Amino acid sequence: MKKAPAKKCACKCCAKKPVAKKYVYSFGCDKTEGDASMKNLLGGKGANLAEMANLGLPVPPGFTITTECCIDYLVDNKLPAGVDEAVKAALAKVEKKMGAKFGDAKNPLLVSCRSGARSSMPGMMETVLNVGLSTKTIPGLVAKTKNERFVYDAYRRLIMMYSDVVMEKAEGIEPAEGQAIRRKLDDIMDDYKAKKGYKLDTELKVADLKYLCDAFKEQVKKTLKREFPDDAWDQLAGGIGAVFKSWNGKKAVSYRRIEGIPDDWGTAVNVQTMVFGNMGETSATGVAFTRDPATGDNKFYGEWLINAQGEDVVAGTRTPNPLNKATKNEQNKKLKSMEELYPATYKELVKIRETLENHYHDMLDIEFTIQEKKLFMLQCRVGKRTGTAALNMAMDMLAEKLIDEKTAVMRVAPTQLDELLHPILDPKEEKASKVITKGLPAGPGGAVGRIVFNSEDAVAAAKKHEKVILVREETNPEDVEGMRAATGILTARGGMTSHAALVCRGWGKCCIVGAGEIKVDEVKRFVVIDGKKYTDKDYLSINGFRGYVYAGKVGTMDSSENVKLQKFMKLADQYRKLGVRANADNPDDAKIAADFGAEGIGLFRTEHMFYGKNCEKPLFCLRKMILSGSVEERIKALDELFPYVKKDVLATLKAMNGKPVTFRLLDPPLHEFVPSDAAERKVLAAAIGISMAELDRRGEAIHEVNPMLGHRGVRLGVTYPEISRMQMKAILEASLEVKGCVPEIMVPVTCDMRELRFQKRILEEVAAEVAKKAGKKKIEYHLGTMIEIPRAALLAGEMAEEADFFSFGTNDLTQMTFGFSRDDIGSFVPAYIENKIIEADPFQTIDVYGVGKLIEISVRDGRATKPGLKIGICGEQGGEAKSVAFCHASGLNYVSCSPFRVPIARLAAAQAAIAAEK
Amino acid sequence: MKKAPAKKCACKCCAKKPVAKKYVYSFGCDKTEGDASMKNLLGGKGANLAEMANLGLPVPPGFTITTECCIDYLVDNKLPAGVDEAVKAALAKVEKKMGAKFGDAKNPLLVSCRSGARSSMPGMMETVLNVGLSTKTIPGLVAKTKNERFVYDAYRRLIMMYSDVVMEKAEGIEPAEGQAIRRKLDDIMDDYKAKKGYKLDTELKVADLKYLCDAFKEQVKKTLKREFPDDAWDQLAGGIGAVFKSWNGKKAVSYRRIEGIPDDWGTAVNVQTMVFGNMGETSATGVAFTRDPATGDNKFYGEWLINAQGEDVVAGTRTPNPLNKATKNEQNKKLKSMEELYPATYKELVKIRETLENHYHDMLDIEFTIQEKKLFMLQCRVGKRTGTAALNMAMDMLAEKLIDEKTAVMRVAPTQLDELLHPILDPKEEKASKVITKGLPAGPGGAVGRIVFNSEDAVAAAKKHEKVILVREETNPEDVEGMRAATGILTARGGMTSHAALVCRGWGKCCIVGAGEIKVDEVKRFVVIDGKKYTDKDYLSINGFRGYVYAGKVGTMDSSENVKLQKFMKLADQYRKLGVRANADNPDDAKIAADFGAEGIGLFRTEHMFYGKNCEKPLFCLRKMILSGSVEERIKALDELFPYVKKDVLATLKAMNGKPVTFRLLDPPLHEFVPSDAAERKVLAAAIGISMAELDRRGEAIHEVNPMLGHRGVRLGVTYPEISRMQMKAILEASLEVKGCVPEIMVPVTCDMRELRFQKRILEEVAAEVAKKAGKKKIEYHLGTMIEIPRAALLAGEMAEEADFFSFGTNDLTQMTFGFSRDDIGSFVPAYIENKIIEADPFQTIDVYGVGKLIEISVRDGRATKPGLKIGICGEQGGEAKSVAFCHASGLNYVSCSPFRVPIARLAAAQAAIAAEK
Repeated sequence: MKKAPAKKCACKCCAKKPVAKKYVYSFGCDKTEGDASMKNLLGGKGANLAEMANLGLPVPPGFTITTECCIDYLVDNKLPAGVDEAVKAALAKVEKKMGAKFGDAKNPLLVSCRSGARSSMPGMMETVLNVGLSTKTIPGLVAKTKNERFVYDAYRRLIMMYSDVVMEKAEGIEPAEGQAIRRKLDDIMDDYKAKKGYKLDTELKVADLKYLCDAFKEQVKKTLKREFPDDAWDQLAGGIGAVFKSWNGKKAVSYRRIEGIPDDWGTAVNVQTMVFGNMGETSATGVAFTRDPATGDNKFYGEWLINAQGEDVVAGTRTPNPLNKATKNEQNKKLKSMEELYPATYKELVKIRETLENHYHDMLDIEFTIQEKKLFMLQCRVGKRTGTAALNMAMDMLAEKLIDEKTAVMRVAPTQLDELLHPILDPKEEKASKVITKGLPAGPGGAVGRIVFNSEDAVAAAKKHEKVILVREETNPEDVEGMRAATGILTARGGMTSHAALVCRGWGKCCIVGAGEIKVDEVKRFVVIDGKKYTDKDYLSINGFRGYVYAGKVGTMDSSENVKLQKFMKLADQYRKLGVRANADNPDDAKIAADFGAEGIGLFRTEHMFYGKNCEKPLFCLRKMILSGSVEERIKALDELFPYVKKDVLATLKAMNGKPVTFRLLDPPLHEFVPSDAAERKVLAAAIGISMAELDRRGEAIHEVNPMLGHRGVRLGVTYPEISRMQMKAILEASLEVKGCVPEIMVPVTCDMRELRFQKRILEEVAAEVAKKAGKKKIEYHLGTMIEIPRAALLAGEMAEEADFFSFGTNDLTQMTFGFSRDDIGSFVPAYIENKIIEADPFQTIDVYGVGKLIEISVRDGRATKPGLKIGICGEQGGEAKSVAFCHASGLNYVSCSPFRVPIARLAAAQAAIAAEK
Repeated sequence: MKKAPAKKCACKCCAKKPVAKKYVYSFGCDKTEGDASMKNLLGGKGANLAEMANLGLPVPPGFTITTECCIDYLVDNKLPAGVDEAVKAALAKVEKKMGAKFGDAKNPLLVSCRSGARSSMPGMMETVLNVGLSTKTIPGLVAKTKNERFVYDAYRRLIMMYSDVVMEKAEGIEPAEGQAIRRKLDDIMDDYKAKKGYKLDTELKVADLKYLCDAFKEQVKKTLKREFPDDAWDQLAGGIGAVFKSWNGKKAVSYRRIEGIPDDWGTAVNVQTMVFGNMGETSATGVAFTRDPATGDNKFYGEWLINAQGEDVVAGTRTPNPLNKATKNEQNKKLKSMEELYPATYKELVKIRETLENHYHDMLDIEFTIQEKKLFMLQCRVGKRTGTAALNMAMDMLAEKLIDEKTAVMRVAPTQLDELLHPILDPKEEKASKVITKGLPAGPGGAVGRIVFNSEDAVAAAKKHEKVILVREETNPEDVEGMRAATGILTARGGMTSHAALVCRGWGKCCIVGAGEIKVDEVKRFVVIDGKKYTDKDYLSINGFRGYVYAGKVGTMDSSENVKLQKFMKLADQYRKLGVRANADNPDDAKIAADFGAEGIGLFRTEHMFYGKNCEKPLFCLRKMILSGSVEERIKALDELFPYVKKDVLATLKAMNGKPVTFRLLDPPLHEFVPSDAAERKVLAAAIGISMAELDRRGEAIHEVNPMLGHRGVRLGVTYPEISRMQMKAILEASLEVKGCVPEIMVPVTCDMRELRFQKRILEEVAAEVAKKAGKKKIEYHLGTMIEIPRAALLAGEMAEEADFFSFGTNDLTQMTFGFSRDDIGSFVPAYIENKIIEADPFQTIDVYGVGKLIEISVRDGRATKPGLKIGICGEQGGEAKSVAFCHASGLNYVSCSPFRVPIARLAAAQAAIAAEK
């Protein structure tokens, strides 16, 4: 039995001081100390910088301070002992390599402090650039670069960034609206530019910049009551601390919640020699993907900006130039590509692309800077991609022999399949609609919704299950919850590598960025598109594959057949060991399930014919049955009900065409079906032939305090065996009409073997009667049980004596094991997640420690009694990837989930099997 | 871990045919084949007949057909192969011993067929006497006995009994009211006697009896459409079958349900030579106890009837004579004792009494018959006794050195203690009341209730929790459910060994029998006592210790101090290993618990101060807290609540005087406390300062679908930590005011170790604050958790990391493990017991297979983490004997139960420890 691992916790008492940890790792100097395998310790960025240095690529030298250091720093609120010295030693190596000195008046070295966690969290943590510029070092740098304007521009950037990140945010200061230091400095600069009649930052002259730097420092002192630090080492210490602290910043925490990233991972800090893409027209900065991250096409894909720093590309404030011809699109087709402007440097970059793909065997996301024509690699990491891209790249790379089959199967996350099966705008309707504006196709699929202009409105709408399109000038990390809540996102600014694009692509959410023609007024809540004003009462439809925007509601449809997907799923199925069935309650769902590759139906809920469309007549019979006053009345109502049940069963069996179908006997408490509507009650009373008062009395009599723990499932089958009898008869009679069909009958809510034996007796009698009537000797069937009550799991060894199969009902099993009513958890589960008492909603992902232990006991004891016992799961977690992996590990025979999740379960099962081989 | 044993079942598929079972065992002939140890196979009666034969006592020879044979017979509806032959062989031995022949015309042997199960089921199964009398054998018997009247009287008894038991009941015939054969034959005899002017049966002459026998046979043929069998062997086969079938008779099944006797035990049949107590004035029959079964006094106690058969004594139709002086009482003091009439035979009986007590080391219940001055022993068994008698005999026999200490402790059933602590009529009030009539003191204690005249009314009243006195002419086995339901029983006829007396003594229920002066009209529902008519609107009070009846309601009180009981409990405590605590929620209960010997309080429910008397003010504060709209409002209300909680805690700690007290933090869902009364709501809304509509909205917001699985217990402590904080503060502050007190704080409804850690942090903070305020360095306390959610049990190894102690909440644990809502089981649990799916209500007795498995996992894993972990149970089963035995076996440290059950738990724990030694 698996023992739950001890949970780590960031509290003081739990953090044990280790002896002599190595906190600082150099790269790009004489010796690079890390490599790509050390992501947990160095973060993704640090590990890959080391790897690139090891590959001989042009990485500016620097060093990484580890994620362990971050956690220790956050616990004690100071750097661990020895880190200061290690930083100085590492910096000395950099100084040696670069021939410059940090804080030196004559030949100063400037560095950046960048965050880098185990997995990418784009824009969620802080960065400080140009660290080391001070009144002492400025003259030396001016002399060295012979570019006074560049130096003062770098200084004003340092002041703006440092005062915001280090002096305000890292100190936990929460300014009132409009009072943030960054905003104040922006205002000073905007006012100054306006006064001078400048439109662009580049128009600022040296004198302007000198003036602004002084004005900034004065404002910093006024607002933050502290001098801007004029010592390089003070700046560095502040920068390192601020990056560490940003791990616990509000947006980072919120992102981790959504992505399920543990709080105790921490971030590393990368301190690296500054290289400048803003040293004039021969300098530039850029971001690229080794293949198209949206489509997966094998094309080098990137954007760059001349005379700019890295964040200018990511922030999306300027529309960047295309990297090459392949990257040109509607927005940037008039801008010069790097291929055209700097063909030699471009060639060098293409070579690096090849080196990296051949080394990593995957698509990479790279950042580079050109300083006075010299190319530097600032980052490389495995690139985020849409589900479509993931699928296409996996199949392409397999064809290119860059990866093997198993790797290809592992390359698509099961949840990404969801996106491949996502709705799109109906092509016909789309063709008939007018495109009102265009943007960059940043996230897949189609989306239709009411316009909202801020994150709060998006979240509020999502709570009401309303679909909205979040329309913003540009998005920033503060918007992350609203982006999650929205159905689609449309921004006026930003490129394909902007914040919004990166985040949406990670989620597979429909998104258009850089729709430059729209004018958004977020405060007054309207947007002007193509001369027309749209408010938050209007609707938009967007096509995230093409970047097209439409007014009003365009119809949507499911993603059509995808040949590559079929091939991929076939490949996955080759490695899968777990069977995959679907939960389907009617012939239509059964058809969908079969189309999605379900190998059978693992859960047919007989009661579902009483919900939804066309249920009036059978529901009326059911109600008569429920409210009957005697066995005779009940049997009469059941006789009326019988043909409806049989018809439903037969149609489903036919739709599955010989594949196995598991029919669950009546499960819910009966009072759920008692009508509350007065008119309905009146008709019902008349049909039964009793007074309204008597009807009310009977309805009242079956009301329960805790219906989930009440008179339901097999308990109904024991108190009213005639109900089981009717259902069994319908199933067996229908099965005789479908060739080769052996129905599986499943008893719900059992807690003791004798309940099952009781139902078995009835089934044996019914089978004998049906066989006799059909002139047959015997009817074949299987009788099994749900394992959804803890006692059934604990006594599985006995249950297996009477059961041909088990099926875990993990919804109910979770309810009973936790003592959580699924209907009532809203009042406390958010607080449980907030306080880290549970990691995830156990109704979404199987709780492997508690519920999982019961599953393991059941499998072990059930198979001890009956070695070939077939065991499956039909709770909703059956279509969730982590849960499927657990089911594989537990030795189950199959999972059953909703039809739309069948492909996800198939892929998750294949990945679990491959992962288990390792 | 204990594996549930395979359940036996009486179905065909489960009963496996064994090879060559021995079905028939002889006794009292040349060789006796059985002994007292073979009760399971021979039944109690058969085993003890064999034992008496082995002791050389005068047992009429015979043989026993085994209980195994009964089960096989009932499965196949015929005797197993070989039994006929074995019966004939055994009968041949009897014939040889007696020098007579069964069915012989000249020297016929007569036999009885009597039932005898493993444990006594008085009057619940059938008996047939005088088997072998027929037109063929009558003349021979007349010649042999020279007593024609006796022979014909025996014949008419045979016809009456046989036609009823064998020809009607065993055939499953259910006659309409008044149409039963027995009733018809009774009518014929009554009419005949009336016509002849006879009052007593003894006045019937030979000719009368001959006439009646003919009339009876004619009536039998007319009613049952069959001739009365005139062949001895036919009679015997019918008799044996009827006894076996009576095991599944309605009254036997109903008795087994109440007593918890398994259905698969079966009954043996004892076929034994008839001896006759009705052969004239030198013949007699009687029943005796070797000590007084009501008081335990070391006096030979018995009743007998001259010229009568055994059932005449048991049936209670005649008031029997006293056995000796010691047995004389108000009713029988004028009748001659055996000591007076037959001193020699009496002496012989006294000798047998000594032999038996010395052999069995226990009080015995014996049946004997004197046939023409010759004494025969028909039965001996360990006698049923009241709790008082059990206690007194145990302590007396210990003093007499007849038994050792451990045996003495084992001699009182824990449930009998209940009776010793039963209410009695208030002696003062009793003295002031007029005794309206007297009867025999057949069952202990005092009872007050409304009069009912039949079983159905008694059952109906019990369902409404109304106390009633069942008043009957005499009771019979059909009344058993009504007797159970009644608070007390009063009958006009019957002796101390009558049906009513035996049953009531077994249950410890207050009962008076043989109150000969009362006249009961059961049909018209009234009783005349002392010339006054009482109907079912009137009340009676009865004293079961003295046999006194009072009109109206006399006050009752608890049984006062009992020195022998104190000594006995002290003795039990010497052998007990399990601690015993009480569940008490206020100082008064704490006091009672301590008086009953509780070693601490295992469960103090902090919320109970909001129920019952004097709760208005704290309840009002609680309601304000519950319905507050912000943390500030809530804290304000909690501050108001604080002094009440502290006061309650302090008073309880003082009452326990240094003994440990476990305080459970708030457990129930809050909406339980929201008032429904409009006036109360109005006051509450005003106090909070909100509108009624807002109050309703807030109340609605905390309503839940399944409150048992909802927002309660520690979930409240996580969402509203301020509630935990207030309770902890009250407990710690109060504990400082009681010297040497180390309070135990218990967290309910936990399912994860991190909930406990969350509460621990709060407790540590509160403890530091309280210590600081009190000028102390540290406060001592223990923090523990309930184990009442399956997940907590499954993850007990982790829970133990944070817990100082565990306490099983078996009520909730049973609810979650079974998925049974205690409030809702009424709709299906009766059907479950009826259909043998479960043996007992798991809320009364711990389900050792399922819930027990979780308990065993918890104990094992909890102690693996923390070897000295203290573990107890505080669910209601903590005071139920079988559950206490399970707790002992599972290695728990203590059980905690309601104060009145503390002595029961103490005794059960001692008995479990002694039983485990064996």
